[in-house]
Amino acid sequence: MVSADAAAVTTVTGNGARGTVTQRLIHDHLVEGETQPGREIGLRVDQTLTQDATGTLVMQELESLGLDRVRTEVSVQYVDHNILQADERNAEDHAFLRSAARRFGVWYSKPGNGVSHPTHMQRFGVPGKTLAGSDSHTCAAGSLGMLAVGVGGLEVALAMAGRPLYLRMPRIWGVRLTGELPPWVSAKDVILELLRRHGVKGAVNRVLEYHGPGVESLTAMDRHVIANMGAELGATTSVFPADEAVRTFLRAEGREEDFVPVAAEPDAVYDLDEEIDLSSLEPLIARPSSPGNVVPVREVAGRPVDQAAIGSSANPGLRDFAVAAAMVAGRRTADGVSLDVNPTSREILQDLTRTGGTFDLVAAGARLHQSGCLGCIGMGQAPAAGRNSLRTFPRNFPGRSGTEDDSVWLCSPETATASALTGVITDPRDWAALAGVAAPHVELPEHASVNREMLEEPPPPERAASIELERGPNVSALPRLDPLPDVLEGPVLLKTGDDVSTDEISPAGAKALPYRSNIPKLAEFTFTRIDPEYPRRAAETAQEGAYDGHFVVGGDNYGQGSSREHAAITPRHLGLRAVVAKSFARIHWQNLVNFGVLPLEFEDCGDAERIRTGDVLRLDGLHALLGADADADSQGASLRLRSVTRDESYAVRHRLSPRQREIVRAGGIIPALAAANSRL
Amino acid sequence: MVSADAAAVTTVTGNGARGTVTQRLIHDHLVEGETQPGREIGLRVDQTLTQDATGTLVMQELESLGLDRVRTEVSVQYVDHNILQADERNAEDHAFLRSAARRFGVWYSKPGNGVSHPTHMQRFGVPGKTLAGSDSHTCAAGSLGMLAVGVGGLEVALAMAGRPLYLRMPRIWGVRLTGELPPWVSAKDVILELLRRHGVKGAVNRVLEYHGPGVESLTAMDRHVIANMGAELGATTSVFPADEAVRTFLRAEGREEDFVPVAAEPDAVYDLDEEIDLSSLEPLIARPSSPGNVVPVREVAGRPVDQAAIGSSANPGLRDFAVAAAMVAGRRTADGVSLDVNPTSREILQDLTRTGGTFDLVAAGARLHQSGCLGCIGMGQAPAAGRNSLRTFPRNFPGRSGTEDDSVWLCSPETATASALTGVITDPRDWAALAGVAAPHVELPEHASVNREMLEEPPPPERAASIELERGPNVSALPRLDPLPDVLEGPVLLKTGDDVSTDEISPAGAKALPYRSNIPKLAEFTFTRIDPEYPRRAAETAQEGAYDGHFVVGGDNYGQGSSREHAAITPRHLGLRAVVAKSFARIHWQNLVNFGVLPLEFEDCGDAERIRTGDVLRLDGLHALLGADADADSQGASLRLRSVTRDESYAVRHRLSPRQREIVRAGGIIPALAAANSRL
Repeated sequence: MVSADAAAVTTVTGNGARGTVTQRLIHDHLVEGETQPGREIGLRVDQTLTQDATGTLVMQELESLGLDRVRTEVSVQYVDHNILQADERNAEDHAFLRSAARRFGVWYSKPGNGVSHPTHMQRFGVPGKTLAGSDSHTCAAGSLGMLAVGVGGLEVALAMAGRPLYLRMPRIWGVRLTGELPPWVSAKDVILELLRRHGVKGAVNRVLEYHGPGVESLTAMDRHVIANMGAELGATTSVFPADEAVRTFLRAEGREEDFVPVAAEPDAVYDLDEEIDLSSLEPLIARPSSPGNVVPVREVAGRPVDQAAIGSSANPGLRDFAVAAAMVAGRRTADGVSLDVNPTSREILQDLTRTGGTFDLVAAGARLHQSGCLGCIGMGQAPAAGRNSLRTFPRNFPGRSGTEDDSVWLCSPETATASALTGVITDPRDWAALAGVAAPHVELPEHASVNREMLEEPPPPERAASIELERGPNVSALPRLDPLPDVLEGPVLLKTGDDVSTDEISPAGAKALPYRSNIPKLAEFTFTRIDPEYPRRAAETAQEGAYDGHFVVGGDNYGQGSSREHAAITPRHLGLRAVVAKSFARIHWQNLVNFGVLPLEFEDCGDAERIRTGDVLRLDGLHALLGADADADSQGASLRLRSVTRDESYAVRHRLSPRQREIVRAGGIIPALAAANSRL
Repeated sequence: MVSADAAAVTTVTGNGARGTVTQRLIHDHLVEGETQPGREIGLRVDQTLTQDATGTLVMQELESLGLDRVRTEVSVQYVDHNILQADERNAEDHAFLRSAARRFGVWYSKPGNGVSHPTHMQRFGVPGKTLAGSDSHTCAAGSLGMLAVGVGGLEVALAMAGRPLYLRMPRIWGVRLTGELPPWVSAKDVILELLRRHGVKGAVNRVLEYHGPGVESLTAMDRHVIANMGAELGATTSVFPADEAVRTFLRAEGREEDFVPVAAEPDAVYDLDEEIDLSSLEPLIARPSSPGNVVPVREVAGRPVDQAAIGSSANPGLRDFAVAAAMVAGRRTADGVSLDVNPTSREILQDLTRTGGTFDLVAAGARLHQSGCLGCIGMGQAPAAGRNSLRTFPRNFPGRSGTEDDSVWLCSPETATASALTGVITDPRDWAALAGVAAPHVELPEHASVNREMLEEPPPPERAASIELERGPNVSALPRLDPLPDVLEGPVLLKTGDDVSTDEISPAGAKALPYRSNIPKLAEFTFTRIDPEYPRRAAETAQEGAYDGHFVVGGDNYGQGSSREHAAITPRHLGLRAVVAKSFARIHWQNLVNFGVLPLEFEDCGDAERIRTGDVLRLDGLHALLGADADADSQGASLRLRSVTRDESYAVRHRLSPRQREIVRAGGIIPALAAANSRL
């Protein structure tokens, strides 16, 4: 049914996009390449953001690149992921990040300031600018008319060093919004509707560009909700125009002078077209355990709920908390339900507090947590196994909550709050009808509780140069990366299904996250969600020394989800040299390349079924095949992958640009830069 | 110098106490024994409290006792310790506790309601009543004129079952307060002054009873601060009169009808006398890593601070947060300092929010955490190694923060906040002088934000009987406990120094705490802070089977600190049968007895130095020596401890009552109850 819907609403335009916001943003920043869909382009990066889980590696990379001071207009280091501090490692990471931020000329946002995406939007977002971030939800800044792309940390490090950001030119998918959202339906339901129609691969190699008369009814923070979870469709990014709603937002933040209108041409044409009549939407929910399993709330109503959580970059706005507060005011959460409230920024917590929402939530039984990502990335708030947890978060991949056999659902604040009050999954319209409650109208304050002082400005260059990095014992050096051998022979140590996420490759959560700066230790967690024996097998294979490395065989959309480059470094550290998959998620594919792992796609997906774990595979003549002059077009080139075990071979394809081929041959971007004397 | 002071201010009265509040409370509840100091007495228990870290075992114990419904006036199960929820185990414990509370007729306080002690005081505390709690800070309720004693979980379970609470009759130490606290000095400085004078063993086997004209200048919550940290002096408990300040407190809580005046006779006499002139006090601080290392703040001012934390049962009142809020209002915390604010109850967070303090704290840079114990028990908020953390908490034992080499200081909210603003340890008077600020006066609201609905009342007996316990996979059964052999021979597997805390015997913290309901797993952490090899050696000794068990040799004040009975069960599970020490902390001594570990004291402390780890020790004829008719007075009796290794022997003493001798012979209280057909 879902795919039938999709066919009904998506139209492909044959003649190529023109006059779109996306194209304007790209053209304004293009420094390399042609903007033909599928071709690699290089963009100038105005701003970067890093968070702590990926940032410590970025800072180590800046160090190994020998950077003196960042070349961007604004770079910001946020601390929002590892803030539970179960032992000294988190605090030592924070001290390291602060020292590195000061050293390299980066703003520092300390723990408690909030989640990077809403905090960046409030303090630094500027329409028309480009933003590269080492977090997959960086795309949220598309809400302000920015071109904001989540990439691996190494690419952010290179952008901070003034190098271009390389992307495959995406196709531009115009999503025309009409009508207005009905009561009890909100921005989260818009993006859930797109996920219901198209699933978690629906926007791969596409930019979602929103336009049409429905856009103006959405506030900038509503647009953040929608742009943020474009990542769940696999989109390169999402883009909204910068219009009066953006001006209003910037005015409330005391930065109206940063407003620049960014709009599509009146006759803009998109590569693909889609339409959503906002007035036709109803409350939706993603069932466990994929953001793509979307159904109407009413279809699953009545199931018991143990936990409801409000917050995360997928519902970050004051409005999202204020709606929950208005719903619970004077009421109480059901016995046995934990209503977890995770403020997304210091400013929003200030606003929620001065407008009374904090009091109402606490009085009704909420647990008010510190500002940050928290349960969204499995840092605390783990539910009991098998018990339903309703969350306004962007993702519900299996185990991401910290609980192996979790049962996590994704929905709007309205649905989560109604369910917390009743103790069962509840369509907020049904709750409102029973309770005799009208949909709350949240008036956003004309002036937000702007709190600029909490973001620490880096010292001027002359003072920064002498700052020493405060490196705790838990901050390792980057592992050394060998060049790719000409003949690669090795066993398949793992075969996965479709849609394997980077959460499954390199888990987050309270056990693994504290080791984000310690690659050898973190590597012990690699793929353990899928196969607890993988790290041991990989270590044994490496120790035996019979092969130069090993293979992993993946399914469709391999490496979806978060941008963590750890999902490339840690298996590489364990000896992974090539992943052969049916298809790859964009960011992880780039991360594999950057760390010298060869990503290959089956020409015939049926071949994947012929390979078994333990088979020995072989690739010959890689140096020539991946040479600078090798015969490869923008779609890459074909290779023969031989099975030594079965004496047969499979056609596979790489999609590497000449620049990327050089990187993989060198063993990764850092050795490539060294070999090329910084020519890259 | 400190001991000279102590000698100067403590006077011993020869003729025995009379007319004290403590004696009245004891006499009103005495069901067994004579009130001669040192004799065992049995008291009727009106109220109990359990928290989640100890409560799961208590509930398992109620189950194994076959209890149908608690016999107390009020029993409450709080969830305040394990609320980070790094994986599914915490949430499963919460579900187990809620089901058990409902089954046994116990009130349930869900995560987010706050720390047991202030929450209990606000909702349930009644002057003149007795309270037994499975948390060492239960004594805080002495602030309301209650006799409140922290004991092991098993003793709380027995009290819930209607059995008496057995104590050694303490000596009553009258602490006369005169004068009034000067600006910038608060209740925390009073108890720090007592710790400065007497150290962490100063009140062992004593009740601290406060009286004199200075008492009335202290609010009920100020008294909570002082009574709470009586535990750090080793006191059996602390007692304040119930006077107008208590009536005012109960009126604000909407429970004035619960007020009963409780006062000493005008001519009351104490066993010992002490005087503190409040007006002479100055800001004090306990240096790392003992609450007894107290010095004036000015002596250590200027050292860099990375973290300041406000909250915990040692500074739980609205006032403590409101003072911090007033100090930071319109200012900002120093760069690089984390100001962690841990609200201690839902009510207090509501009050702080409606009076503007929450806003001021957040705006100034604080991290506002959920209500609960958090960093105080090492659940998160771990500082970087060696970096100074100033906390308003009650304890700074080494490693308790979650960081092995921590540097934790204990002080008042005034000192912690001034230091957070300056970034260095700061006497708040110096900060105030520089900033030109007068000491904030906090007017407590006449009516607090009473929130009764958050505490879940158990269903009536007819409905409760059918409730099933929700037992997750992480809730183990209690280990089986064998009787004490007549001849006990075994090796010394560990020798410790003085003041070993239960934190060092059975660590809390994020790694161990989730296993609080799983004894075999938790046992793997036993003594690992002192000797990581102890669990392995114990397991090997047990496996070899040459001995019936092993010995530990301790120093002075063995087992100080928290009441956790895990510190008795887990080494017992690993084969510990006797601890020989110079002296014991009271609660741990009782816990050892309850779980069948024989606690012995050296007659000549010099003998401790003669014993080495690995020595084989032997006790003969234990059944006769510990028989019901054995020749033992209230001080116990002498035994010969032979060293098989050295062919010498040492005089040791037990202090067991006839009841306790029966318990140790049986192997613990649960087998004793079984053997005696519930006669105990």
